Amino acid sequence: MPLHEFELIDRFFSRLTGGDEAVSCGIGDDAAVLALSPDQELVVSTDTLVSGVHFFGDADPYDVGFKSLAVNLSDMAAMGAQPRWATLALSLPQADMAWLQGFSRGFGDVAERFGVCLIGGDLTRGPLSITGQILGTVPAGAAIRRSGAQPGDDIHVTGTLGLAALALSLLQSDRESAAIPPSSLERLLRPVPRVQAGLALRGTANAMIDLSDGLAGDLGHILVASGAGAVVELSRLPCGDGEGVVSEAEMLRLAVNGGDDYELCFTAPAAARDAITALAGAADCSMTLIGKVVAGSGITWLDEAGNAMSVDAESYQHF
Amino acid sequence: MPLHEFELIDRFFSRLTGGDEAVSCGIGDDAAVLALSPDQELVVSTDTLVSGVHFFGDADPYDVGFKSLAVNLSDMAAMGAQPRWATLALSLPQADMAWLQGFSRGFGDVAERFGVCLIGGDLTRGPLSITGQILGTVPAGAAIRRSGAQPGDDIHVTGTLGLAALALSLLQSDRESAAIPPSSLERLLRPVPRVQAGLALRGTANAMIDLSDGLAGDLGHILVASGAGAVVELSRLPCGDGEGVVSEAEMLRLAVNGGDDYELCFTAPAAARDAITALAGAADCSMTLIGKVVAGSGITWLDEAGNAMSVDAESYQHF
Repeated sequence: MPLHEFELIDRFFSRLTGGDEAVSCGIGDDAAVLALSPDQELVVSTDTLVSGVHFFGDADPYDVGFKSLAVNLSDMAAMGAQPRWATLALSLPQADMAWLQGFSRGFGDVAERFGVCLIGGDLTRGPLSITGQILGTVPAGAAIRRSGAQPGDDIHVTGTLGLAALALSLLQSDRESAAIPPSSLERLLRPVPRVQAGLALRGTANAMIDLSDGLAGDLGHILVASGAGAVVELSRLPCGDGEGVVSEAEMLRLAVNGGDDYELCFTAPAAARDAITALAGAADCSMTLIGKVVAGSGITWLDEAGNAMSVDAESYQHF
Repeated sequence: MPLHEFELIDRFFSRLTGGDEAVSCGIGDDAAVLALSPDQELVVSTDTLVSGVHFFGDADPYDVGFKSLAVNLSDMAAMGAQPRWATLALSLPQADMAWLQGFSRGFGDVAERFGVCLIGGDLTRGPLSITGQILGTVPAGAAIRRSGAQPGDDIHVTGTLGLAALALSLLQSDRESAAIPPSSLERLLRPVPRVQAGLALRGTANAMIDLSDGLAGDLGHILVASGAGAVVELSRLPCGDGEGVVSEAEMLRLAVNGGDDYELCFTAPAAARDAITALAGAADCSMTLIGKVVAGSGITWLDEAGNAMSVDAESYQHF
């Protein structure tokens, strides 16, 4: 009986999540928001990477360290938060010095790039697994939640979609494949979180999420939280360049359903288009208009002729 | 090449831990302390429990849930912090509803008892492992660190020592043993963090730590952090009641070296003895004077005749 992560949390942990007035935003968004002082809120998120599930057991430890912090920073980006501090809980089968050195270099390069300070940790013996927790700050009331999308809003995504999923699908069929475009492998192994773009979108985006499980699933989370639907024009999706390794149709399928892109998907009023163009330039990050929020529910995918078409809309399920 | 957790962290992660003036206290104490507002500091800690390492794989999920939050709360207690919010990263081999139900009941009972609100989580597929992160608050400057012990301070411990280690040693030799005193099993499986005692000791204790790895090792951490030594009178140790299952000498050895008690060890000026007696009563928790902080380094263990004796001073090593 596979159940989605959110259903499991709702089912078993909901009695633990309420009743604290300092919690501006609890479980169910990219991060929690705590009102700790009148002018500033604390943003808190946690993410786990497990060997054999989220990365190959023989993965380069540099890449594992890089990604383990990057995916947590992506949750900060999705809230429009400034990442500040991290804790690291690391389970390792044994104290492997070479592995730790590589891991700490990768983790550290991301921490330095984004100005994150490591404040705590727990090293335990066990199957290889990394749980990062990230703490960030936003001005009070400025966090960008999933629930703010309004019918009539434009829907935008940053960067390109589908390359990480392309690399993963090729690696899963052949670990030694020489056909994997280097740019797609880079996206899978060392995703760069859109922290600057997330900060720049404060005050402009009405709702935002990071694309970890795939556009279909993650945009779906915005729509459920906002009580709205969406129309997305498939021809507008900024698919990554598959370099001829797969068909355009397959690249489109990966852009819709593939996870691990760690781009941002956000909604904003149509009146903000010029502002978004300007801040995309400032954040050095493309932002592409892909559709509209509408009344109703669910996502309608339109082909070039404007006909609704079905896409395989299963995003990554945690169980 | 077994290395202790702290050495590993120092060796590989030290470049990531500095340079942020909001970090009042970083890696190396029971929790980190962040100065987020003029009057209040945030206290942050994380702890992982791994199946087969920190609990038996077939352990009652209620107990696993209970302990996974309790050990994190113990870190708050050791800082004199008020626990407020938790995140939970849970890796499970499959979505086992019965297990999740038991786990969430245990976790929830501790959360409710101590007023902790669950604000975030990550459920992933993987080997059974739980990483809790706890956030608490203290008035600015009130956190009780490991580094504040002064020569001349008394050394106290809360509660009793050694029972959790007794239960563990008996379980390790015979999982079905009927000889395990129920009180010791309770201490191993469902340790009650000394949150009230920790709060009560603000302004009185100069240094504090929780006893997770054993008195010898954990008091040793206080001494290293404080640049001091200690003399401990073994006859004063509040050994738990082994109920005749083991000798008194073995019970003493467990009290010195056994982990998992989750009691507090703290130092305070001798002038505070009456105050400590009073607050022990208020916190409904015994506090026992066991020795003195002295100039120098290391722990001198005295027998009843006042002669220094050697104890096997190896606390739990994470690798």
